Amino acid sequence: MRFLHTADWHIGKKFNGYDLLADQRQIIDQILAIAQREAVDAVVIAGDLYDRGVPPVEAVALFNEKVAAMNLTHKLPLLAIAGNHDSSVRLETGGPWFSHTDFYLHTRLDQAFTPVVLGDTQFFLLPYFEPIAARLAFEDEQLKTISEAMVPVIAKIKEQFDPEKRHVLVTHFFVAGALRTDSETKIEVGGLDNVPAELLADFDYVALGHLHGKDAIKHPTIQYSGSPLKFSLSEAKQEKGVFIVDTEAMTREFVALTPAHDVGVLTASYAELLDPTFYNQIRREHFWQIKLTDRAVIPNLMNTLRGIYPRILGVERVSGVGVSNKALVNQSQLPQERKPQELVTDFFIEMTGEELSSPQLDWLQKAFTAITKQ
Amino acid sequence: MRFLHTADWHIGKKFNGYDLLADQRQIIDQILAIAQREAVDAVVIAGDLYDRGVPPVEAVALFNEKVAAMNLTHKLPLLAIAGNHDSSVRLETGGPWFSHTDFYLHTRLDQAFTPVVLGDTQFFLLPYFEPIAARLAFEDEQLKTISEAMVPVIAKIKEQFDPEKRHVLVTHFFVAGALRTDSETKIEVGGLDNVPAELLADFDYVALGHLHGKDAIKHPTIQYSGSPLKFSLSEAKQEKGVFIVDTEAMTREFVALTPAHDVGVLTASYAELLDPTFYNQIRREHFWQIKLTDRAVIPNLMNTLRGIYPRILGVERVSGVGVSNKALVNQSQLPQERKPQELVTDFFIEMTGEELSSPQLDWLQKAFTAITKQ
Repeated sequence: MRFLHTADWHIGKKFNGYDLLADQRQIIDQILAIAQREAVDAVVIAGDLYDRGVPPVEAVALFNEKVAAMNLTHKLPLLAIAGNHDSSVRLETGGPWFSHTDFYLHTRLDQAFTPVVLGDTQFFLLPYFEPIAARLAFEDEQLKTISEAMVPVIAKIKEQFDPEKRHVLVTHFFVAGALRTDSETKIEVGGLDNVPAELLADFDYVALGHLHGKDAIKHPTIQYSGSPLKFSLSEAKQEKGVFIVDTEAMTREFVALTPAHDVGVLTASYAELLDPTFYNQIRREHFWQIKLTDRAVIPNLMNTLRGIYPRILGVERVSGVGVSNKALVNQSQLPQERKPQELVTDFFIEMTGEELSSPQLDWLQKAFTAITKQ
Repeated sequence: MRFLHTADWHIGKKFNGYDLLADQRQIIDQILAIAQREAVDAVVIAGDLYDRGVPPVEAVALFNEKVAAMNLTHKLPLLAIAGNHDSSVRLETGGPWFSHTDFYLHTRLDQAFTPVVLGDTQFFLLPYFEPIAARLAFEDEQLKTISEAMVPVIAKIKEQFDPEKRHVLVTHFFVAGALRTDSETKIEVGGLDNVPAELLADFDYVALGHLHGKDAIKHPTIQYSGSPLKFSLSEAKQEKGVFIVDTEAMTREFVALTPAHDVGVLTASYAELLDPTFYNQIRREHFWQIKLTDRAVIPNLMNTLRGIYPRILGVERVSGVGVSNKALVNQSQLPQERKPQELVTDFFIEMTGEELSSPQLDWLQKAFTAITKQ
């Protein structure tokens, strides 16, 4: 059989304050189009369907619409699990009815132990869980960490192995050796939330969610699909897409996705940024982190740039602001060695790329005088 | 055919701060038992399944468990609509799959125009909607109120009438002539949110939700089921239950429900309330509003009573507190004619039935002095 592997949709997520719902709608439609073009037998979604436990109502509407389109209109079997961003109880709503049309949405640990069989393959859908769930399930108080909890979980899954079938694990964890980016929630510190790759050696394919880069782990049988969209600047250079897995040949093929708005870094001078011959050559409406090469103070910088680049993520100065040489020099000093006024003015320049205006300086002076008086 | 008519479950509601989830679980189980004993062909739930748009996760778990038990385990067809307390978008989750097993959960106005046919009856499931939905559906800007909006809605429903069938409307509004209680949300003031009973004359039965008293309207074919539990003191004397409707004979029969904890008023002296021969004769664990016949000040009143009566709704004095005769006399004065200290002490007595203690009076005096100084 052939299936499409995706994960980390994070429906309802905002990116530096920008609503991503239209981008998510477009990218899910693209995933559906790929599934149809590739004539897959199922779509696997490895967790973090939503960005949070109580998603905005518009996110719920989008998710409901798209899974109904995939599963009911296009008759695609869906195999999905809850991730750490999902509320397993809320996501469970409708679950017992979904399986009537081959939509398997597993939200509880115990559901991982009943394989879903499609064609030549047993799928084990293991949702994100906390160690407490394993302690209760196995009545073993020693299971304090995910790496400890995963041992009996995988053992119990393997007891269900049909030797005549392929074995695919769908799950949502940090597998040891993987690299993180900024947009994934850090669950625990210290590596105790890791799943050692060796533990997953007996599966023909492990369809992972959780980390947003598809190359987070390089392994012959363990694969993150990556998120379908870039959710942070640290993902700017990642290639986003889905995997098409063939269980007969046991091959996987990456298929790239094209977002409505890409994420990138623009390094340019202010004059260039305002020049139509510059900005007409690039996709102004993308999410841009701007690296300004100017050192001069520029009034009304952000508003002017936003008029041309509507999705600015932030503005940095490549070589600092000219007038704040002092501030840059001062950064070697400890904060407590510097005057409060200096700290405020430097911070303002660092954040906005602009100097405090004369009324702002007046106001600041008055505020400090008032504080000192008390 | 025969169906059970219930409404206004308000899962997740709290009653004066007391969690009702266990009571709601018990009462839903009782409704299921009645449905089985009466061998009904369907259960109708006329809106306000949840108490609010984003119910607590425990409420979601209870609802999911109970509808799965009714519809999947016991194979009972369910006909349900969203009420004004429900989020129609959130409640819609799973809807397109539910109908595969005769669970019809209508959350949008347009769904009312496709009848659900069970046996000899066409059911029209008309969820709670705002006039804006009718303005959009009928492209008529004049539909400003529910009573205006309901005219084309009912006309369009009647176009779907099969003359060979019975016609049952399931909806969730204030039908003119009905009486309100404290626990129903007032939607609009002025009666523009009313549905005139005449408009509903052509239905064989109108299964209503919204008002919590089954006797809110006396009409040959229009019936509120009432809520299955008492949700406010003003419902203390209401009889709670469900209706069993027979569409062949076109009869309806009330079947009472027995709550885990009833709601009532206890009028007694403090000495009686503390006397085991008194409280062993009543159900101490019920929700009691206590009317104290004493006039004396009683220290630590609420804590002592709560030790015996764990679900006290409130304590009132039948004849006021002895020491606060002054306060009672003073009530004829306008608040601005009285001293702030008096207002606070009287208010405290009124709310708690206790006088301010000496440290409390000290603190109050200091607070007023501090205020006057400024």
